[in-house]
Amino acid sequence: MTPRVTVYEVGPRDGLQNEAVTLATGDKLALVGALADAGLPRIEATSFVSPRWIPQLADAAEVTAALPRRSGLAYAALVPNARGLERLLAALAARGEGIADVAAAVVVSASESHNLRNLNRPVAGTLAELEALVPAARARGLPVRGYVSTAFGCPYEGRVDPGRVAEIAHRLLALGCAQVSLGDTIGVATPRDVRALLGRLLPSAPAAALALHLHDTRGTALANVLAGLEEGIETFDAAVGGLGGCPYAPGASGNLATEDLVYMLQGMGLETGVDLGRLVAAGALAQRLAGRRLPGRALQAALAARGG
Amino acid sequence: MTPRVTVYEVGPRDGLQNEAVTLATGDKLALVGALADAGLPRIEATSFVSPRWIPQLADAAEVTAALPRRSGLAYAALVPNARGLERLLAALAARGEGIADVAAAVVVSASESHNLRNLNRPVAGTLAELEALVPAARARGLPVRGYVSTAFGCPYEGRVDPGRVAEIAHRLLALGCAQVSLGDTIGVATPRDVRALLGRLLPSAPAAALALHLHDTRGTALANVLAGLEEGIETFDAAVGGLGGCPYAPGASGNLATEDLVYMLQGMGLETGVDLGRLVAAGALAQRLAGRRLPGRALQAALAARGG
Repeated sequence: MTPRVTVYEVGPRDGLQNEAVTLATGDKLALVGALADAGLPRIEATSFVSPRWIPQLADAAEVTAALPRRSGLAYAALVPNARGLERLLAALAARGEGIADVAAAVVVSASESHNLRNLNRPVAGTLAELEALVPAARARGLPVRGYVSTAFGCPYEGRVDPGRVAEIAHRLLALGCAQVSLGDTIGVATPRDVRALLGRLLPSAPAAALALHLHDTRGTALANVLAGLEEGIETFDAAVGGLGGCPYAPGASGNLATEDLVYMLQGMGLETGVDLGRLVAAGALAQRLAGRRLPGRALQAALAARGG
Repeated sequence: MTPRVTVYEVGPRDGLQNEAVTLATGDKLALVGALADAGLPRIEATSFVSPRWIPQLADAAEVTAALPRRSGLAYAALVPNARGLERLLAALAARGEGIADVAAAVVVSASESHNLRNLNRPVAGTLAELEALVPAARARGLPVRGYVSTAFGCPYEGRVDPGRVAEIAHRLLALGCAQVSLGDTIGVATPRDVRALLGRLLPSAPAAALALHLHDTRGTALANVLAGLEEGIETFDAAVGGLGGCPYAPGASGNLATEDLVYMLQGMGLETGVDLGRLVAAGALAQRLAGRRLPGRALQAALAARGG
């Protein structure tokens, strides 16, 4: 096991895009600031997706231009296409002083039906776009992170072949992605699935080039983290408070809560650099802004212990 | 890893004793019946604690006398003292036809403060009582299960010494308990803690004589199950729907939800004998009877998927 683990915060992007409320830009920046104060080393701050698709993130340019600079903290913004990349670059230019602390994130699903509904084209079409997009981002100085969605199961097709997931992940790495995050989009994975998929990837990809993006829809997220740690994975995605829910099962839990992840990693003696008390403060803010009780368990336990 | 895992259902006892509502006896029996229909092999049905302490379980005799007989299903009832054992034996006599399918469960905490507040005496006092109680139960034909509460952390004392927990667990086994269940009463354990405690016990106790009773207060329960499985543990306690909450942090989660446990075990190819669809039906009943949204994640995901 690695003694140091990178907690990759996706709440402001993957969380907020699935919340019913649309936050004011200032509130989003306050949340990013609280997460930065907690010591998170990676924060995915927004998405340059078309505002017609995800109105909650229409202020991607304003958020990006105002991201606070912190030593040891790097951001990412999702760019679904060439237009998104241009918007990100323009926002970074407006922010000024170089762009070394912001990465571009790209996404493709492992299942055809999900890619069609999410990105409006077949998987091959998205991969063909990424063949231009990833090198273009790198040429402009942006590191690129790739997501493989529905890496364990698809809301439309069920079980997903790990061989297909491994093939797509390798494709993204070959295109120049610094890291590929394997997404359990609907939260169906168990540790056996995690091991099966990593078993196909790790012989040919370094552990540092892979991340796990787990959802806690059936309570298995931290068990899957443990399986990932045991296989050598060093980066895990999570959303503060479990922000976001599951778009395919309204009312169910979605993203693994960052507080739960950090609680377990710290309890196991693994270094994250995150201050759990400050993270809980960020979770309390996220809950207030979301206007609903967030599903994160360590957050709720901490708030209950405070009588909050 | 063991290919077969025993899911030990504690919802009707450990769950209901921590719910605000008091269920009618008929509703409790309906819940037990639904759990039996789901194929659970072990159900802890009630507690012969003084009704003054836990009014919700004042009908322990009526519940016990009416427990349905099923092949492959064994029950347990908690007996805190000699008076509780006499009440259990009287209820079993009222049920008739032998008592081979009901065990007695006894409990002691690993931390002094918790034992004092829970059982009104020091740990040594409870152990002295159990020295008479366990053999007395066995002499009457009852198998005995022991619980060690606060086996990982105490709400009053914090961290608990695994050496002390191991000592008490060995004591219970030596007294004649067929199995000792190690309780993470406040849900603070991480996989490292589970391994540390089991590492002290397994060299001298067979894995089948130990069980893990995990709470999901900080989301770590299934990760701890995975650690337990990897160490050879074959029995895990859980409460349908996550019934019960955490008495030390109102609003936080308590018992690991049975649906989450069964979902993961089945996904890992481990045999439980439980029908997850029927278990979700029992969870839906538990939720209706408890009158609140239960925290079990697989339950909520299943209900959301059904539009329920």
